[in-house]
Amino acid sequence: MTTPPPRLSTDQLIGANFSFQHWPLADVARAMQGFGMTEIELWGIAPHLDLFHADAARIDGVRRVLEETGLKLRCLTPEQVLYPINIASGDEAYRQASIARFCRAAEIAADLGARHLFLTPGRGFESEPASRAWDRSAEALRIIAAHAADRGLRCLLEPLQRRESNIAHSAADLRLLLDMVDAETMDVVLDTVAMACAGDSVADYVRLFGDRLAHVHLVDGTPSGHLIWGEGVLPLAQYLQDLAQAGYRGALSFEPFGDGSYALDPMRAWRHNMQAIAAHLAPGKALA
Amino acid sequence: MTTPPPRLSTDQLIGANFSFQHWPLADVARAMQGFGMTEIELWGIAPHLDLFHADAARIDGVRRVLEETGLKLRCLTPEQVLYPINIASGDEAYRQASIARFCRAAEIAADLGARHLFLTPGRGFESEPASRAWDRSAEALRIIAAHAADRGLRCLLEPLQRRESNIAHSAADLRLLLDMVDAETMDVVLDTVAMACAGDSVADYVRLFGDRLAHVHLVDGTPSGHLIWGEGVLPLAQYLQDLAQAGYRGALSFEPFGDGSYALDPMRAWRHNMQAIAAHLAPGKALA
Repeated sequence: MTTPPPRLSTDQLIGANFSFQHWPLADVARAMQGFGMTEIELWGIAPHLDLFHADAARIDGVRRVLEETGLKLRCLTPEQVLYPINIASGDEAYRQASIARFCRAAEIAADLGARHLFLTPGRGFESEPASRAWDRSAEALRIIAAHAADRGLRCLLEPLQRRESNIAHSAADLRLLLDMVDAETMDVVLDTVAMACAGDSVADYVRLFGDRLAHVHLVDGTPSGHLIWGEGVLPLAQYLQDLAQAGYRGALSFEPFGDGSYALDPMRAWRHNMQAIAAHLAPGKALA
Repeated sequence: MTTPPPRLSTDQLIGANFSFQHWPLADVARAMQGFGMTEIELWGIAPHLDLFHADAARIDGVRRVLEETGLKLRCLTPEQVLYPINIASGDEAYRQASIARFCRAAEIAADLGARHLFLTPGRGFESEPASRAWDRSAEALRIIAAHAADRGLRCLLEPLQRRESNIAHSAADLRLLLDMVDAETMDVVLDTVAMACAGDSVADYVRLFGDRLAHVHLVDGTPSGHLIWGEGVLPLAQYLQDLAQAGYRGALSFEPFGDGSYALDPMRAWRHNMQAIAAHLAPGKALA
């Protein structure tokens, strides 16, 4: 008699507002509640909660939406690739403003009861050696992680693709950067598209990060593109099985961006993803 | 004996910092000077001059770079699609903050000696009727144009693609919106990709806007993509000839975005565009 392969739990799948940036947040939260979600990743964009308009009224509004829908905030993920935020910039005034904004983001995330603040390495000038950007990134991440830790918050660090950054792209890069930062409270994100673009595997992430792997962005791609399940060529079911086999207990969230058209009908994109993942998850046991 | 077809003038071609967002501005300006440019369109992004970090020191820095390279600022084009700026948002607090930021942008542009402030319609919620967003957009554009006019500045209005906005996409849409705004100081932009995506022609723009057509973004596409000349399928040489035939006297600027890889080597992208356009322009006569 063979044992069925282990599966990740439905409890590990959390909601998010990815693709929903042109809906009011209250409607997004109700949609996520409708999908049976109990936790969400909040992408920090306008008009929901971006770092440039995060005044007390805005934060209170988010808190009210969470309370009304009973959703718990798993992590705050400020938009930091498209928006003018860069903790590794070669422009020092801009970089310091970005660090200050992320320290404030840590306070907001803690205030809203999040477990994690989501970070990326930033990007240096393309006209200078990348090593300088690495140094600036590590220093900034250390400052932000310390500020977050003082408020009881852990951080998450995700690698970017080359077109998004000249700092850390692969799992090995991310390990180097994590060692440079040297903060016990910094965990790691596996984004299936970033992983595939860098030629890495789930096994690489598990080997390099162990329990520090705390968050997974589940997206299809060709290998890039951040597509909904089935519109790309990535073996998402196999990735889920690999994660289950490794005893992964962290969060899973969908991050569909595509070419911008998912945002015209985000419910369609999410229904599609929810249907695709259903068969690959087992009924809930507690999320770590 | 046949008369050669009229050509646009080399003086109409202006520089820009598109694709150069990961270079220091001083280096971009020197590169544009090297290409023989005397005027530039300044894309208002970080770290050059975005509306979220445009303090006095930053504005003075830009002024110094312009003075040192002898470049004149033709127009300021704040990033307003990717960034958290939306003058038509259904979120009123966010919309008011965006309008205020654009009024400030008009002051900055005037202060730097620009002729034009570049605007787009913004975007309403995808979960409400677009007509509401049209009304909010028109009202916001009227407020900003009046504020700009008080400082001697004209505005430019560019349509967006459907994935970027639910307001004005075609030349006919843009004419409607322009009539709703009803500001004598608002001119119009022809973006070759937006035009092709909407199924419009140069003749449509000339017929609908006449002398109000004051700025052209010259980009290749498939039809979308904002590519460098030759990497798409658009008949750019024909567009230039159509513009020349119509007696167009406004500015021409390249706006290469692509998939983000042009920004890894923006000089390559610009050299390519400069070589491609050379044969289609006649030696200078004054730009209107």
